[in-house]
Amino acid sequence: MSITRRTMLAGTAAAGAALTTGLPVLAKAPMSNQQAPGFHRFKIGSFEVTAIHDGTVQRDMPKGFVRNATDAEVSAAFTELGLPGDKLTITFTTMVVNTGDRVILLDTGNAAGGTVGNTAKNLAAAGIQPGDVDVVAISHFHGDHIGGVRGADNALVYPNAEIVVSEVEWGHWMDDAKMNAAPEAARGGFQLARRQFGPVADKVRKVQWEKEIVPGITAVKAAGHTPGHTAFLIASGNQQMMFVGDITNHPGIFARRPEWQAIFDMDPQMAIATRKALLDRAAADKIRLSFYHAPFPATGFVVKDGAGYDFLPALWTSTL
Amino acid sequence: MSITRRTMLAGTAAAGAALTTGLPVLAKAPMSNQQAPGFHRFKIGSFEVTAIHDGTVQRDMPKGFVRNATDAEVSAAFTELGLPGDKLTITFTTMVVNTGDRVILLDTGNAAGGTVGNTAKNLAAAGIQPGDVDVVAISHFHGDHIGGVRGADNALVYPNAEIVVSEVEWGHWMDDAKMNAAPEAARGGFQLARRQFGPVADKVRKVQWEKEIVPGITAVKAAGHTPGHTAFLIASGNQQMMFVGDITNHPGIFARRPEWQAIFDMDPQMAIATRKALLDRAAADKIRLSFYHAPFPATGFVVKDGAGYDFLPALWTSTL
Repeated sequence: MSITRRTMLAGTAAAGAALTTGLPVLAKAPMSNQQAPGFHRFKIGSFEVTAIHDGTVQRDMPKGFVRNATDAEVSAAFTELGLPGDKLTITFTTMVVNTGDRVILLDTGNAAGGTVGNTAKNLAAAGIQPGDVDVVAISHFHGDHIGGVRGADNALVYPNAEIVVSEVEWGHWMDDAKMNAAPEAARGGFQLARRQFGPVADKVRKVQWEKEIVPGITAVKAAGHTPGHTAFLIASGNQQMMFVGDITNHPGIFARRPEWQAIFDMDPQMAIATRKALLDRAAADKIRLSFYHAPFPATGFVVKDGAGYDFLPALWTSTL
Repeated sequence: MSITRRTMLAGTAAAGAALTTGLPVLAKAPMSNQQAPGFHRFKIGSFEVTAIHDGTVQRDMPKGFVRNATDAEVSAAFTELGLPGDKLTITFTTMVVNTGDRVILLDTGNAAGGTVGNTAKNLAAAGIQPGDVDVVAISHFHGDHIGGVRGADNALVYPNAEIVVSEVEWGHWMDDAKMNAAPEAARGGFQLARRQFGPVADKVRKVQWEKEIVPGITAVKAAGHTPGHTAFLIASGNQQMMFVGDITNHPGIFARRPEWQAIFDMDPQMAIATRKALLDRAAADKIRLSFYHAPFPATGFVVKDGAGYDFLPALWTSTL
């Protein structure tokens, strides 16, 4: 006999009161259909750092997703992590740092739409309004990092923010000769850079690697994924962390296999050298990392394991 | 020369406006000092499941924490995960299931105090008030699972809820002969059970293993950690998950090494058999698990890896 509500209740002493009236008291709380707000906060020294969930996309696994591995090997690497082998789910995580003196947003996420482009919304959930952002620092000019510079109305989303980019990244994408020499199909990136930054080009601060962009945050050369791809080292007190952008896609796949060349890396050999160098530095110095495409909240540590690195997500705690 | 605000601004075109007035425009958003609310939501079929953060505690690693491993081996297992080898941080995660018809809370967390006992607070953050809970189902009678049955005022925290426990767990802890036969130092558990459940003993529903406690949720034998330790299988549509309570402490340590006997397991050999049987079932049937002591939000999948099981946290998404 299957269990019905009546037989179940009839068999229990606790249902006594309910049976008296013939009806159990059920709160029937409505379904919420709401996830918790998409942010996660922690301290680095005296700085308050907040991971911001821009969103996720799921698409079919691209054929030839890794240049130097077979589709079957790629699929196996995903299923090993409990992920579907035929789907590619990408998470996008921006970061905001409050140094006490300035609020610095690291990357801006995707243009709003569908399941992405939620950086400004989740910043607000984290208590930070667009006008509070003093600096927007950009790791590189791919659309999932600069899409959120402007809103659907084309206005700057962070009206008070100085925009900070690597002079190398700027030099590549804003070079008309390079754009004109590129095949038609490869011009989108150049055009997007102009759309997002062109109208404020003279106000964008172009910075050098290995120099502080604000006190406590240093631009770090991380080239290969794009020509001017930049990480940001955040240091306060005796703690440090690094926002490493796209030195890997999902670190469970690509930190584990640093030689793999994902199709997103513009210069695969340089990307491999950067990946190894920064992961090695982070493992040796126990630097907390934030990977743009790790599962949310996308922050933790790496340890060397054989030829690769294991990503160990940081512990979630409610106390900062 | 170190970078001061003035030299930094002086070197940038973007600072032009600020230099005109002599002062940069800085929002100086205040530090928040607030973590995101401690809940995480996902669907199992038509059921809405929410992981609730009761809190964390950190203490010195107990000597002899694992009966059949040396302290050095235990310490190494923790540092392998990027955790301190000399500290034991324990996370506590309760779960609430809204079946559409009933709201079922699985375990109640610790008594409130310090960094734990936040289940009711985080339930409220998740939109569920104490009066909304129809059923409180208990995995076992350790204080970090039943401490939240009553508040500081000794009143039941969930006034409308029927309390559901395994008849075996009830039989053990409510047995006066067993309590009186126990050494003085081991009587606390018996006394706590009486304090929490004694006044409502006749209203507590004592259930059998492998039977539904409400439609869609089945009590599953998981004995060893305590005599009546119980898991709960949640099934809706073609999806299922299991709240496995304390079949492991941190699964990164103890699912990885199912033979390890943590001091918390009352019957170590039975606990090992249960751990292996349920992890094996979950790996084979791809059942999503919720471990009470995994890092928040404490839910994911296990895959067999050599003699142990790897815990793969589920992907965080903002869409349910």
